[in-house]
Amino acid sequence: MDLTTITSPSFLKELNHEQLKSLAQDVRKFLIEKCSVTGGHIGPNLGVVELTIALHKIFDSPTDKFLWDVGHQAYVHKILTGRASQFDTLRQYKGLCGFPKLIESEHDEWETGHSSTSLSAAMGMAAARDIKKESNYVVPIIGDGALTGGMALEALNHIGHEKTNMIVILNDNEMSIAPNVGALHGVLGRLRTSRDYSKAKEELESLMQKIPLVGGKLASTAERVKDSLKYLVVSGVFFEEMGFKYLGPIDGHDFEALEHHLEYAKKVKGPVLVHVLTKKGKGYKPAEEDTIGNWHGTGPYKIETGDFVKSAAKGPGWSALIAETVRKEMAHDNRIAVITPAMPVGSKLEGIRQDYPHRFYDVGIAEQHAATMAAGLATQKMKPFLSIYSTFLQRAYDQVLHDIARPNLNVIIGIDRAGLVGADGETHQGVFDISFLRHMPNMVIMMPKDENEGQHMVKTAIDYDGGPIALRYPRGNGYGVPMDATLQPLPIGSWEVLRAGKDAAILTFGTTIPMALAAAEALAEKGIDVEVVNARFIKPMDEAMLRELAARKLPLLTIEESVLQGGFGSAVLEFMNDEKLHVTIERMGIPDQFIEHGDVPELLAEINVTADEAVRRIEALVNNTEKVGQ
Amino acid sequence: MDLTTITSPSFLKELNHEQLKSLAQDVRKFLIEKCSVTGGHIGPNLGVVELTIALHKIFDSPTDKFLWDVGHQAYVHKILTGRASQFDTLRQYKGLCGFPKLIESEHDEWETGHSSTSLSAAMGMAAARDIKKESNYVVPIIGDGALTGGMALEALNHIGHEKTNMIVILNDNEMSIAPNVGALHGVLGRLRTSRDYSKAKEELESLMQKIPLVGGKLASTAERVKDSLKYLVVSGVFFEEMGFKYLGPIDGHDFEALEHHLEYAKKVKGPVLVHVLTKKGKGYKPAEEDTIGNWHGTGPYKIETGDFVKSAAKGPGWSALIAETVRKEMAHDNRIAVITPAMPVGSKLEGIRQDYPHRFYDVGIAEQHAATMAAGLATQKMKPFLSIYSTFLQRAYDQVLHDIARPNLNVIIGIDRAGLVGADGETHQGVFDISFLRHMPNMVIMMPKDENEGQHMVKTAIDYDGGPIALRYPRGNGYGVPMDATLQPLPIGSWEVLRAGKDAAILTFGTTIPMALAAAEALAEKGIDVEVVNARFIKPMDEAMLRELAARKLPLLTIEESVLQGGFGSAVLEFMNDEKLHVTIERMGIPDQFIEHGDVPELLAEINVTADEAVRRIEALVNNTEKVGQ
Repeated sequence: MDLTTITSPSFLKELNHEQLKSLAQDVRKFLIEKCSVTGGHIGPNLGVVELTIALHKIFDSPTDKFLWDVGHQAYVHKILTGRASQFDTLRQYKGLCGFPKLIESEHDEWETGHSSTSLSAAMGMAAARDIKKESNYVVPIIGDGALTGGMALEALNHIGHEKTNMIVILNDNEMSIAPNVGALHGVLGRLRTSRDYSKAKEELESLMQKIPLVGGKLASTAERVKDSLKYLVVSGVFFEEMGFKYLGPIDGHDFEALEHHLEYAKKVKGPVLVHVLTKKGKGYKPAEEDTIGNWHGTGPYKIETGDFVKSAAKGPGWSALIAETVRKEMAHDNRIAVITPAMPVGSKLEGIRQDYPHRFYDVGIAEQHAATMAAGLATQKMKPFLSIYSTFLQRAYDQVLHDIARPNLNVIIGIDRAGLVGADGETHQGVFDISFLRHMPNMVIMMPKDENEGQHMVKTAIDYDGGPIALRYPRGNGYGVPMDATLQPLPIGSWEVLRAGKDAAILTFGTTIPMALAAAEALAEKGIDVEVVNARFIKPMDEAMLRELAARKLPLLTIEESVLQGGFGSAVLEFMNDEKLHVTIERMGIPDQFIEHGDVPELLAEINVTADEAVRRIEALVNNTEKVGQ
Repeated sequence: MDLTTITSPSFLKELNHEQLKSLAQDVRKFLIEKCSVTGGHIGPNLGVVELTIALHKIFDSPTDKFLWDVGHQAYVHKILTGRASQFDTLRQYKGLCGFPKLIESEHDEWETGHSSTSLSAAMGMAAARDIKKESNYVVPIIGDGALTGGMALEALNHIGHEKTNMIVILNDNEMSIAPNVGALHGVLGRLRTSRDYSKAKEELESLMQKIPLVGGKLASTAERVKDSLKYLVVSGVFFEEMGFKYLGPIDGHDFEALEHHLEYAKKVKGPVLVHVLTKKGKGYKPAEEDTIGNWHGTGPYKIETGDFVKSAAKGPGWSALIAETVRKEMAHDNRIAVITPAMPVGSKLEGIRQDYPHRFYDVGIAEQHAATMAAGLATQKMKPFLSIYSTFLQRAYDQVLHDIARPNLNVIIGIDRAGLVGADGETHQGVFDISFLRHMPNMVIMMPKDENEGQHMVKTAIDYDGGPIALRYPRGNGYGVPMDATLQPLPIGSWEVLRAGKDAAILTFGTTIPMALAAAEALAEKGIDVEVVNARFIKPMDEAMLRELAARKLPLLTIEESVLQGGFGSAVLEFMNDEKLHVTIERMGIPDQFIEHGDVPELLAEINVTADEAVRRIEALVNNTEKVGQ
């Protein structure tokens, strides 16, 4: 069928299994085609085609509430709720969001992006329903990877305790972003290998009835055996222990099984967990055969071959560059151990895993544990390198503050994807870390101007013994600059003048340095001579240079791809003010709003963080200063 | 024995059980006496006397590593490691810390304060040991309450997966700070009621051997039954599912049982969990009989009667005032639901629990879940009141940012214990929340000047429909001001002039207002006329008033009991700078360091946040301005 004609999921009620299968085929074809052009989370979405169709058939959205944990697997849901025609704009500026979005549709009940939130939000929705004495279903859909996130476990624990009516769909695709980690995965694995569990349970029940009852002791034991039947075989004992009725595991691509179990789940009182087995990438061979996670989220690809369309990047990828530098240092420094919360692929840590398996820890989606485990390593004089996306470091705010910064432990925090990330949008922008790390005592924060400085910063972090040190690096690629053969640590807190000037100075770091240099060139043509400073240490700052700039009475412009509140520009304001240095300062950066998805240049243009704006501001500053000087 | 003569725990190796019992008695007497004067966490410590003695007898600290989760139960550990003589200064300024502290002793291997960190840190320490090919024991001691914290569950999951050698002591006192919550508690409860589990297990094993094997089907089932023996009865199945060898439950006050099981645990390969049942308050009747948590942490008390020594507070306790105001509003506003992460006693929510049990949720130690559950309630047009200590809100940073502020949901965050908290020290100071909330778009932050304004702010928060709103209130008591009978919402972002003045202005809020007024009076005597502004909205600020102050060319002093980096003073700097309003600004607040334990006035004096300092700063400002004006 033409999917763009769908306006509401209600048409599903009338379809029989053959028609549903045909629809599933159409949806797959649509997804494969659309994502081949726009890129997107193709693997996870191909895995939930039948599941999503079945959910929308059995339940009545939006009266019943679906909560898509993580949320990048909601494409099918978007198609079935009338958004197929927008898929050409998927994840693009002003286009369809790659995650559920309240303003897009009444069927998007819960916004996601970060993992493991759905159960807690569902508990809130269910509580509201019960307080209002309503009777709708609340249906969080959570993956096996997201389930290991601490807050999901907190929620399971609370929901099981409250015995709240809720239908949790465990979408077990045997792999979250990377092959799954953790003991919980073992539990799921045992469940998976015992599809005949209910049959086995029946057999056991009949077996138990045949046990000879010889004497009171054995009789009472046999009683206990009966009570304990639910523990027998591998029958969802973990979830039942947590207070959930457990159903499954069932084949997530079989409409009959799905409908049967979902209908049954509707009748259960209290929380029920439906364990659904799905196959990531189902129906598209290259994605289906992916064992590493390359097809989790992709850019554009050629449908026939499954080849990814290469971007025309000049330099190495930032993640690879940092990971490779760390890997090389590990060869001669046994203190270094690397921890990642489920991002070995995204952060390009596979080489480290391969070469140093005993100093590499993929802890699963567990950012809090990752950070405090790093602290534990540091207490034993190790040099842990905690590799983590900026947006996910938010999850470990307290652990960084309470467990790393407070006891001043030598933990290296490699902050991947710092700054705007583009297509993933507002849930994933790495724009808060400077503001939330800067107020932590003992913290050092740095960001390199290019990949060569990036490798020196890895060395800087490893050699530093004064406490925690954060190395931010952006999404995307470097510039292809020449790389020094020998690594040299930078003096902590040292800035660098990239371009001397006498009329004004731009203080900036990382990705906005080219913008500053472009502005300086444009201003030079207008006869304004601008100094450009690589403020590569955001904390501590180069106070000597700041004093010198103040002494020279240069008006200053700070530029940061980070929130302005409490950010780098604020740090400069605070310093100048505390030191009673009278300088004119302008700040450019991310205003007090969330930034949606789109190409980074488009996003920066929208918020007026551009070379043109820098030119305009500096011109005004210089003209104004001249007036004051007149 | 005279406990102050202990210099190292090695003397324990020589003691027999009778001598250990006698020592336990001495330790209890000592704790009860010392805490009756200083206050402290008497209940939890009385519960772990035998356990701590046994641990120090069986293991060799500091070669073997003890990690005391939460850490307020480490008093016995401190006594046994040579710190008995310092107990007169417990939790006092420059005195013995109430938590483990690296600088106090080589036996304090891990600093705690916040809950649920020990397993992650232990995993780090164990990983370091294994990398270095060392062989010491790593022994985290975690309570049943702390175990429900998400990061502890993340850690269990990872440790079980890695099969790391570690001996986890589960100190199950049936009650964390408040009666425990959650399904996990149910598991522990079932374990507790089956002390004969190992006997039952044996019986079952023999029973299973007698099962008649009739035909292949039943035979294979029987095989599976054997494999599944560990699931039978209530035999620690939860922990075994997570990959741990489970020992116990054992009586935590029985030296024989403790020694036997701890010695056995030392021989186990891989992670082992020793389930120890203890009684909070053991050996001191008033504490032992406490079912609410009043004896968890106390001020001074009379030993004979167990009566608490009343402090001479003028006004109502802040927690009680806010809770009671919320409770009254709940009577006529069905939208209000209250969530607390395990702090119903501390935040005085018992009345709400009693009157509105169906709109009250104690979710256990689970701050992340609490925040996102509040978000879920808000999506359904409820008015959740998330009651949470400032220091514990740190745990929910990402949930507040990603799940509440980003979708701009109407969640009220009642931030209890905002500002310096005193005796609990650096792990508990509520001094970061302004800096970490202020950079979140959509967030409103307010703090009342007194308890009357406090009650109006509750109403303000309930009536506000623009998104999240945080109401900060301090530890301790109000001033006993007259209370208005009718609640009136305050205009969002409105400040209030408390004292007019023409020479300078102090902008401050909450607990530092009396300091500002005192400074203004002292300055008046010196002929300097200072305006004092109640900057009760930290975000958004009263921009009209700021502009007016700037127009009047008044030099400004900001005072905050909060960190200066990115704090309220920075907000004023940012605003004035962005608006190009040229004003002289001085900032007083908490510098870039962690603040240890002590009385709040002592701590403020140490960091120079005092009325005297305000006087000195304003005098300098005014004199300087006059000079500039000359």
